[in-house]
Amino acid sequence: MPIRCSNRKDMLLTDAVTRAAQLLKEHRESIDRLDAILVYTLGERFKHTQAVGELKAEHDLPPSDPTREATQIARLEHLATEANLDPEFAKKFLNFIIDEVIRHHKKHQS
Amino acid sequence: MPIRCSNRKDMLLTDAVTRAAQLLKEHRESIDRLDAILVYTLGERFKHTQAVGELKAEHDLPPSDPTREATQIARLEHLATEANLDPEFAKKFLNFIIDEVIRHHKKHQS
Repeated sequence: MPIRCSNRKDMLLTDAVTRAAQLLKEHRESIDRLDAILVYTLGERFKHTQAVGELKAEHDLPPSDPTREATQIARLEHLATEANLDPEFAKKFLNFIIDEVIRHHKKHQS
Repeated sequence: MPIRCSNRKDMLLTDAVTRAAQLLKEHRESIDRLDAILVYTLGERFKHTQAVGELKAEHDLPPSDPTREATQIARLEHLATEANLDPEFAKKFLNFIIDEVIRHHKKHQS
């Protein structure tokens, strides 16, 4: 029996929806894996900033180091451009992380 | 000639400072490498969220998906605990990223 035109259209539509659902699923699986990388990398990064905080406290060094922070921002802006990310976002991201580092340090001091 | 006590103390202090400076340098080098991982991983993540946005627009799906977001938050909280990160921070982090994704989508729509 030949497929009627309207049925065929429905089938094609269903195919497109199935294909889109499959693609959506695959992208989300990638996003979930990348989020795991981000969380574990942040965990590793905080381990180092905590060690830096302890070293600074031990040697009476100031907690904030504007020269280092300026170098970090310039470096991140450059990396962001290479990674096709908005450099403004990279700056916001570093500030977000630095705020958390400061919150950590305050928590350990109190 | 024997080393005088005060000189010896100075030398030990200098040693400790040199050692601390070396440790600080090593931690900062690790932090810089981890920041490169974070920036490139975020670049990869935005590539996928952009594809998701395009798929949703193409198939008239709502841009926001509360069920998916709730699953992501629960998953990230679990990962954060495993990575010795504050789960509250992981939640803040995901919201920070989602805000940027929404900003991206709006920019592409306008």
